[in-house]
Amino acid sequence: MKKVLIVMGSDSDYDLMKPCFDKLKSLRVPFEAAICSAHRTPERAAKLSREAENKGFGVIIAAAGLAAHLPGVFAAGTTLPVIGVPIASGPLNGFDALLAEVQMPTGIPVATVAINGSANAAILAAQILALSDPELAQSLKDDRKSMADSVEKKHERLQKKLQTEDL
Amino acid sequence: MKKVLIVMGSDSDYDLMKPCFDKLKSLRVPFEAAICSAHRTPERAAKLSREAENKGFGVIIAAAGLAAHLPGVFAAGTTLPVIGVPIASGPLNGFDALLAEVQMPTGIPVATVAINGSANAAILAAQILALSDPELAQSLKDDRKSMADSVEKKHERLQKKLQTEDL
Amino acid sequence: MKKVLIVMGSDSDYDLMKPCFDKLKSLRVPFEAAICSAHRTPERAAKLSREAENKGFGVIIAAAGLAAHLPGVFAAGTTLPVIGVPIASGPLNGFDALLAEVQMPTGIPVATVAINGSANAAILAAQILALSDPELAQSLKDDRKSMADSVEKKHERLQKKLQTEDL
Amino acid sequence: MKKVLIVMGSDSDYDLMKPCFDKLKSLRVPFEAAICSAHRTPERAAKLSREAENKGFGVIIAAAGLAAHLPGVFAAGTTLPVIGVPIASGPLNGFDALLAEVQMPTGIPVATVAINGSANAAILAAQILALSDPELAQSLKDDRKSMADSVEKKHERLQKKLQTEDL
Amino acid sequence: MKKVLIVMGSDSDYDLMKPCFDKLKSLRVPFEAAICSAHRTPERAAKLSREAENKGFGVIIAAAGLAAHLPGVFAAGTTLPVIGVPIASGPLNGFDALLAEVQMPTGIPVATVAINGSANAAILAAQILALSDPELAQSLKDDRKSMADSVEKKHERLQKKLQTEDL
Amino acid sequence: MKKVLIVMGSDSDYDLMKPCFDKLKSLRVPFEAAICSAHRTPERAAKLSREAENKGFGVIIAAAGLAAHLPGVFAAGTTLPVIGVPIASGPLNGFDALLAEVQMPTGIPVATVAINGSANAAILAAQILALSDPELAQSLKDDRKSMADSVEKKHERLQKKLQTEDL
Amino acid sequence: MKKVLIVMGSDSDYDLMKPCFDKLKSLRVPFEAAICSAHRTPERAAKLSREAENKGFGVIIAAAGLAAHLPGVFAAGTTLPVIGVPIASGPLNGFDALLAEVQMPTGIPVATVAINGSANAAILAAQILALSDPELAQSLKDDRKSMADSVEKKHERLQKKLQTEDL
Amino acid sequence: MKKVLIVMGSDSDYDLMKPCFDKLKSLRVPFEAAICSAHRTPERAAKLSREAENKGFGVIIAAAGLAAHLPGVFAAGTTLPVIGVPIASGPLNGFDALLAEVQMPTGIPVATVAINGSANAAILAAQILALSDPELAQSLKDDRKSMADSVEKKHERLQKKLQTEDL
Repeated sequence: MKKVLIVMGSDSDYDLMKPCFDKLKSLRVPFEAAICSAHRTPERAAKLSREAENKGFGVIIAAAGLAAHLPGVFAAGTTLPVIGVPIASGPLNGFDALLAEVQMPTGIPVATVAINGSANAAILAAQILALSDPELAQSLKDDRKSMADSVEKKHERLQKKLQTEDL
Repeated sequence: MKKVLIVMGSDSDYDLMKPCFDKLKSLRVPFEAAICSAHRTPERAAKLSREAENKGFGVIIAAAGLAAHLPGVFAAGTTLPVIGVPIASGPLNGFDALLAEVQMPTGIPVATVAINGSANAAILAAQILALSDPELAQSLKDDRKSMADSVEKKHERLQKKLQTEDL
Repeated sequence: MKKVLIVMGSDSDYDLMKPCFDKLKSLRVPFEAAICSAHRTPERAAKLSREAENKGFGVIIAAAGLAAHLPGVFAAGTTLPVIGVPIASGPLNGFDALLAEVQMPTGIPVATVAINGSANAAILAAQILALSDPELAQSLKDDRKSMADSVEKKHERLQKKLQTEDL
Repeated sequence: MKKVLIVMGSDSDYDLMKPCFDKLKSLRVPFEAAICSAHRTPERAAKLSREAENKGFGVIIAAAGLAAHLPGVFAAGTTLPVIGVPIASGPLNGFDALLAEVQMPTGIPVATVAINGSANAAILAAQILALSDPELAQSLKDDRKSMADSVEKKHERLQKKLQTEDL
Repeated sequence: MKKVLIVMGSDSDYDLMKPCFDKLKSLRVPFEAAICSAHRTPERAAKLSREAENKGFGVIIAAAGLAAHLPGVFAAGTTLPVIGVPIASGPLNGFDALLAEVQMPTGIPVATVAINGSANAAILAAQILALSDPELAQSLKDDRKSMADSVEKKHERLQKKLQTEDL
Repeated sequence: MKKVLIVMGSDSDYDLMKPCFDKLKSLRVPFEAAICSAHRTPERAAKLSREAENKGFGVIIAAAGLAAHLPGVFAAGTTLPVIGVPIASGPLNGFDALLAEVQMPTGIPVATVAINGSANAAILAAQILALSDPELAQSLKDDRKSMADSVEKKHERLQKKLQTEDL
Repeated sequence: MKKVLIVMGSDSDYDLMKPCFDKLKSLRVPFEAAICSAHRTPERAAKLSREAENKGFGVIIAAAGLAAHLPGVFAAGTTLPVIGVPIASGPLNGFDALLAEVQMPTGIPVATVAINGSANAAILAAQILALSDPELAQSLKDDRKSMADSVEKKHERLQKKLQTEDL
Repeated sequence: MKKVLIVMGSDSDYDLMKPCFDKLKSLRVPFEAAICSAHRTPERAAKLSREAENKGFGVIIAAAGLAAHLPGVFAAGTTLPVIGVPIASGPLNGFDALLAEVQMPTGIPVATVAINGSANAAILAAQILALSDPELAQSLKDDRKSMADSVEKKHERLQKKLQTEDL
């Protein structure tokens, strides 16, 4: 299977990206992660993006806050699909990062997920790779089933709670 | 190659989605299009999304305006990657549709592109399918090359313009 | 009297919805509550909405955060009045949920109340059911009277405070 | 059947409210309309709201733009359900009206629909009245069916268009 | 001198309005305060506004949060100048209250100050009353002088701080 | 009676300020108008504001767009009440001007009216001057009466329209 | 004198950037202009930014719309001051471009001017270069004087207009 | 070398401006700081801005929150480049200050940096002064090198973390 490359501007985003790592691991999707800044290490970012395809990556996940250019820089350097995760940092709480990632000009798309939506970035990457990997496709379907089951369990818990509190 | 399914809430969005059709055609990516409303034909939408994988679709592009639920409905009904195109309709100019598509809860991602970004949705779909189609991958790279050449030509045109206007 | 069906996407919203349960109980409006997700359990949501009328429900209250589709999904599945409660979760603080609930397309309205306005959802549901229930109508009027009295009491408390603090 | 009272701040909103009148008429829901301003005729507004129930009204639809207080004024004067229609007038395009209508304090809900959503206000009013009027309930279901049929027709039209344009 | 009437929707706003009381007191402007809700006690609000002029009030300060109608209700009931203070309560942090107070329709102005700007409301009220009260006018000028002096002192404190920290 | 000073940044705002001139004239409030820019003629602005009181002005109305500092500059230079009119110019449609006028720091209030609310600025100025001018106070009350009458007339016109169109 | 380099993403921005060219020309500041896209020609952009200093440029002006990364790309590639001009293109009217340019992370500033503020970008570039060019500094002061004079003339024109219209 | 003048409205902004002082010191750029308010000490602000050039300043950094006029006041009083730092104070979290600083009218630019971006203001000032100071230019390049190195180190730290946590 092709690997997922996860890039983030700073290790201060590690905690927010942890659900992404965890989800990929639980889905057995191979991945590598790199710290890389669109503005502080532009050449490194450009190089990483240009080489990603030949290094066996199939999808890139880029996470950034503020004027979040990292996903766009990677989208400009490769024709692999690039997923953008806007990070809620700074006083505008990720709203700036959302617009800076999603509003890409014609020709260079960034597949943007929710602010801080790092787990969804992992799932989207897996959905993309699963197109040629039936086992992974099945894992994703199993996950959906688990989610549905979990909703059922929460539903039952709620019924008990309402009874207990006499509502 | 797997096909792309394009769904939109109304044929009034046809003109905004035309660049999507055109781009897929020029990239020789097979596609089908359907009118389908998250709210007016919820069962049809659910059915379409559940059957998409078995009908040979690999990616779904869903376009909607206002409280734009269509991409989310499809994302809920399949584990195929779903691309959301927020449409600028109504007084909030697509800002409502952007938030209604991108801010999906954990578990069910929508790969959101720019407001009215229908051509980019096509390119993103092609990038995803190109992971297992080297010819399509090459077409995408050729497209990038053309874009770069076109920027060069615009650059030269600008130089002449500045000389002509004595700037 | 017809019952109120309260649906919410997760039991993590329980505390925010507690005022809704309490208000319905104090008004003696019968209700049931369900956990149900537009995206994680779409078929369950569709089924619940389609069956609501036959199960004796008269009004549906749906609460959700982020790209809050749950009220819209219920509105699509029934012609009963559906009340939407945008929940303030995530970095945009419920602003995304507000737009995703209120900006419904023509044909499928969601009666949206304030962000986190779960008590008001209960009151609105009661106002609707009170149209054919004079006793409930009277309870609502009594509530209004209590609210007005409480304002009076606060007014008197303020007068004392201003005197005490010599203002 | 109880009547619907439609109030609007100015006759300049007539065109935007026309779909509301038309929809109520087509659903055979009796209604009356009044021009009435929260700020220019506050006593008239208060009187109308206090007397609405006794005059045989069951639901109130109030439409206003800018600092749109009219729905709130009516909600304060009656315990009938009040539906608010934010009108897109002025430089903020109805965004101000939306917040001024939907963000009501605890105790006094306004059932807010989309900006300029006057047809949906009519449908919501009908849904409320249909709780005790099976014929109206059937009309609403027929309307839903028509909407779904119309989506089907648009779908077929799209297929022809795609063939014609060779897409 | 004419008195200032301060109205607020709830005594939960007391702390935010304290600077208003303090400033009026320090300027020796006579005032009274009332708890009064646009929505919970509409008749009381209407009555207070209609009688304000005859009771010797010259300016009204109204503070409210969320869909903040209180200033507008008072502006509708009197031709005295009405000052609106948007209160930052709820998830939108006063942004909703700002728009609901400032965007008044033609004919009925509300003199809106900053979100939580209760001290400025007091100063504005004093500026208005000072037009016919030279002593108050002088107090306002003295206040300005003190503010300027305080800036000077802060400036000197900063110089010392920079030296101490060797900056 | 004290005069009103109207300042605006450019004569391009003349049309938007015309309702202000007209309203003051119809109320027989004496006024003068000046073009004066906070940024292009800062000394002139400072001088005008410092001298306004001695020149017989009682209220200042300042209109500006974009980073609208003009009202704040005048508020800083005088203790007369200053009314700010945010002008909808540029791509943000007056939203920038609204925040730049209303969010003044403690000590220096600007009485802000709606975006483009120039007529309301005139009325607010008149309300302030009317505190010591019973005739003007009466004119304002007469105006209110006319507004209410006009609403009545619009109401009757609407009734005819509904009959004519068979609604 | 060092030259100014003006880069823009597309020649469709030419009209909006014309005031920038004109202002630099009138101030006799030498400049060159290039079409260059952060996303379509990333290597060209990187090369241009890295070579700018050695080619005799002293300031860079970069204009872009939507997810406007061009100024950030140049700021990342040089330590020359980079001025960003957000362009109002697309449904969000430049608001997205403003945030994508101004909210740069620590270490890599972009000196952002107003949306569509291309003339101000030229003036800011000239102010920077004038620090070591007394003649240019004088031209800027002369320009200020002209602006002030022009305000005076507009003021006189307004006086006549008010007399003519009998205001 | 010319000096940098840092002005801020209050010493309560000291902590947010500390990174600006520190960065200038580390770059050996001489600077002075002043407390100065656009509204509380307008004449002092005007005087400081007019005299800045003759006192040996080359760049001005002005920091302010809310209706942040301080940078604009300085930009109006000098033709030196003025850098604006929007400060996140108050309920709108610096969004008001951003618009009040960046949206300057034609003729008077403010070089705006990110909300709370005080370190970037220092870097931008240094970049401007470095145009005629090769040693400072070299320091800025060294800083860039350090930033890139620091990204490398963070990258290595991440690799270890991923191994440790078995990701």
